[in-house]
Amino acid sequence: DDYRKMQTVTLIPGDGIGPEISAAVVKIFDAAKAPIRWEERDVMAIKGPGGRWMIPPDAKESMDRSKIGLKGPLKTPIAAGHPSMNLLLRKTFDLYANVRPCVSIEGYKTPYTDVDLVTIRENTEGEYSGIEHVIVDGVVQSIKLITENASRRIAEYAFEYARNNQRSSVTAVHKANIMRMSDGLFLRKCREVAEDYKDIKFTEMYLDTVCLNMVQDPTQFDILVMPNLYGDILSDLCAGLIGGLGVTPSGNIGANGVAVFESVHGTAPDIAGMDLANPTALLLSAVMMLRHMGLHEHASKIQTACFDTIKEKKVLTKDLGGSSKCSEFTAEICRRVQDLD
Amino acid sequence: DDYRKMQTVTLIPGDGIGPEISAAVVKIFDAAKAPIRWEERDVMAIKGPGGRWMIPPDAKESMDRSKIGLKGPLKTPIAAGHPSMNLLLRKTFDLYANVRPCVSIEGYKTPYTDVDLVTIRENTEGEYSGIEHVIVDGVVQSIKLITENASRRIAEYAFEYARNNQRSSVTAVHKANIMRMSDGLFLRKCREVAEDYKDIKFTEMYLDTVCLNMVQDPTQFDILVMPNLYGDILSDLCAGLIGGLGVTPSGNIGANGVAVFESVHGTAPDIAGMDLANPTALLLSAVMMLRHMGLHEHASKIQTACFDTIKEKKVLTKDLGGSSKCSEFTAEICRRVQDLD
Ligand SMILES: CC(C)[C@H](C(=O)O)[C@@H](O)C(=O)O
Ligand SMILES: CC(C)[C@H](C(=O)O)[C@@H](O)C(=O)O
Repeated sequence: DDYRKMQTVTLIPGDGIGPEISAAVVKIFDAAKAPIRWEERDVMAIKGPGGRWMIPPDAKESMDRSKIGLKGPLKTPIAAGHPSMNLLLRKTFDLYANVRPCVSIEGYKTPYTDVDLVTIRENTEGEYSGIEHVIVDGVVQSIKLITENASRRIAEYAFEYARNNQRSSVTAVHKANIMRMSDGLFLRKCREVAEDYKDIKFTEMYLDTVCLNMVQDPTQFDILVMPNLYGDILSDLCAGLIGGLGVTPSGNIGANGVAVFESVHGTAPDIAGMDLANPTALLLSAVMMLRHMGLHEHASKIQTACFDTIKEKKVLTKDLGGSSKCSEFTAEICRRVQDLD
Repeated sequence: DDYRKMQTVTLIPGDGIGPEISAAVVKIFDAAKAPIRWEERDVMAIKGPGGRWMIPPDAKESMDRSKIGLKGPLKTPIAAGHPSMNLLLRKTFDLYANVRPCVSIEGYKTPYTDVDLVTIRENTEGEYSGIEHVIVDGVVQSIKLITENASRRIAEYAFEYARNNQRSSVTAVHKANIMRMSDGLFLRKCREVAEDYKDIKFTEMYLDTVCLNMVQDPTQFDILVMPNLYGDILSDLCAGLIGGLGVTPSGNIGANGVAVFESVHGTAPDIAGMDLANPTALLLSAVMMLRHMGLHEHASKIQTACFDTIKEKKVLTKDLGGSSKCSEFTAEICRRVQDLD
C-alpha cells in the first residue's frame, strides 16, 4: 500500500565524493521514512547520432518518467568538445530557473548573520547562449541573447515563488544603463509581471549596486531575479555569505514539475572515498526537492535535524569545523530525525 | 620660481556635493603645499557638429594640455540620447584602465579587516561595446567585444602596476568556461604577458569563484585584472568590503600619462550645499593622482593626515559615524597635514 504512494526520483550520485554524500542522503531519507523510490542513473554525456553530445538514454528515460532528479557533483569532462554536464542537463530538460536560497545557519560562524534571501537565475540564455565569432584576427564577439519569453517566464517564476513562500519583495538585478536593449527587455518584462503581483513589492537595482549593498548588509534583500551570468555571480557571492557551497542548496526548475536539485560544490577528489565529505549541500537540496514534491513534513523534519546537528557542534565534518566522519555526521542526523517522530 | 614647478590639473567639480568636496580637496592640497595649479572646467556633454555628443571644447582642450583630471560626481544627464558622462570621458581620452585600490581603513568598522587589493578593469570594450540589435520582435542581442590589443594592454598595465607597487600576484578573472572565445582570448593574453613578469605570481580564477572567495576571505587577493563588466561588479563589491564608495578612490588611466581620477559615489543631491558631504573618496583619488604625477611625498602626507583623522574618530562626517561638517573634517585634515611638515 505504502509502495503505491512512493514517488520515484532519479538519483545521479556523481563523481568524487558524490557517491558518499548521495548514500548519506538516502540513509537520512530512510530514517525519515520519506516515500521516495530512488532510481540511480549515470548522466555523463555520450556521443549520440550525428555526433551530438547527449545524456545516456536510460538516464533521460528515467528523468522523463520521474520528472525529478537529485544530483551530486559531476567532474568536468576532459574529452575535447565535451560540454559542461551542468549546462547539458539544464538544456536537455529546459530547466529555466535556477533557485538558490541562502539562509544563515545558526552555529556556523560567518561574517554575516540573519541572511535570508533567494537568488533566482534565468538558466537558459543570456551570456550562456554559446554564440561566439571571430570577426577578424584578434577581435572576438560573444553574443548575449535575451528574449521576451524567457524573461517573462523567469519573472513569473520569481513572483510566484515569492507569493508561495510568503516573501515580500522581488528585486530585478540588471545593467540596463549599459545593455539598454537586452537588459532593458529583461527589466521591462519584470515590470510587466510585477503589475500582476501587487502584493509583492518590486524594486530594480544595478548589479554593481547589489554587490556593494550585499556585502554591506545582505539582510536588506529578499528575492532577487536576474539574467543568467548575473545569477551565476550573485548566487556564488551569496553562498559565500552563509558559509560557502558546502552548505548551499540549489534547484533547477523546468516546466510541468520537472526539476533537478543539486549540490553546486565540486567533486573534491582529494577526499573522495575517505568518509570525510560533508553531505549538507546535497541534503538541503534534497529538502528543497521534498518541498517541490509537496512533502513538506518530511522536508521540515530533515531540515530541523540537519540544522540542529550543526547548531549543537558536537558531530561535524571537518569543513564545518568538527572532526567527525561523513558517516558519523549522517548517523547523528538520522538519530535526530527519528527522535522527531 | 615655485610657479614654474607647478603642474596643471583639470578640475571637474561635478554636481550635487561635487563642488563642496572639490573645494575640500583644494584646501587640503593648499595646506600640503602641493605644487598643483587647478584649471576648473565643466564637462557636461554638448551636442557637437553632426549631432554627436562631446565634452565642451574648453574642457577637452584643458585636459589635452594638462593630461590629468580630477573629477567629482556628475549627475546622470536626463536629455534623451545623452550618454553617460563617465563613459564619454573614458572614451574621449581612451582611459583604458580603471584602477581601484581597496584597503581597509583603520578605525572604520566593516565586517572585514586587512583588505588590501587592487581591481584593474578593462575600461573600453567588452560588454560596454554599445552594440545591440533586435533580431526579431522579442529577441535581442548585445555584443561583448574582446580584442587582442585591449586585452594585452590591460594585462600589461596590471603586471606593470604590480611590479611598480611591490605587489606579488596578479589574478585574471574570467568566465572562459562559458565564453570560451572572448574570455578565452582575454585569458590567453594575460597568460602571454605573465611570461614576461616571472617575478609576479599569476593565477586565473572564475568570476563566480572570485566572488565567493572574496566574501569569505578578501585578504587572499592582491591584484585582480578583468574585462569591463566583471570589473564594474568586482570593484563595487570590493568597495563594499572596506566601507563603500564614500571611502574608495578610483583612477582611469590612458596612454602617455593621461588620467582622470574620480570619486565613484553619487552626487547626493539631498545633502548638497549643506556642508555635510564626506570628501574622503575624492581626496584619496587625488592622492592616487599625486602618486601618478610622481609627487609621492605630498601624497603620503595627505593620506596619513586623512587616515589619522578617521582613526582618531573625533572629527568625522555623518556617514563616517561622526557629527562634524565637511568643513570641520577638512580643517582637521589640513591641521594634521601642516603638523606633518
Ligand atoms: C560549472 C559552470 C558551467 C556553472 C555556470 O557557470 O553556470 C556553475 O558555475 C554554476 O553556477 O552552476
Ligand atoms: C555609471 C556607470 C555607467 C558606471 C559603469 O557601469 O561603468 C559605474 O557603475 C562605474 O563603475 O563607473
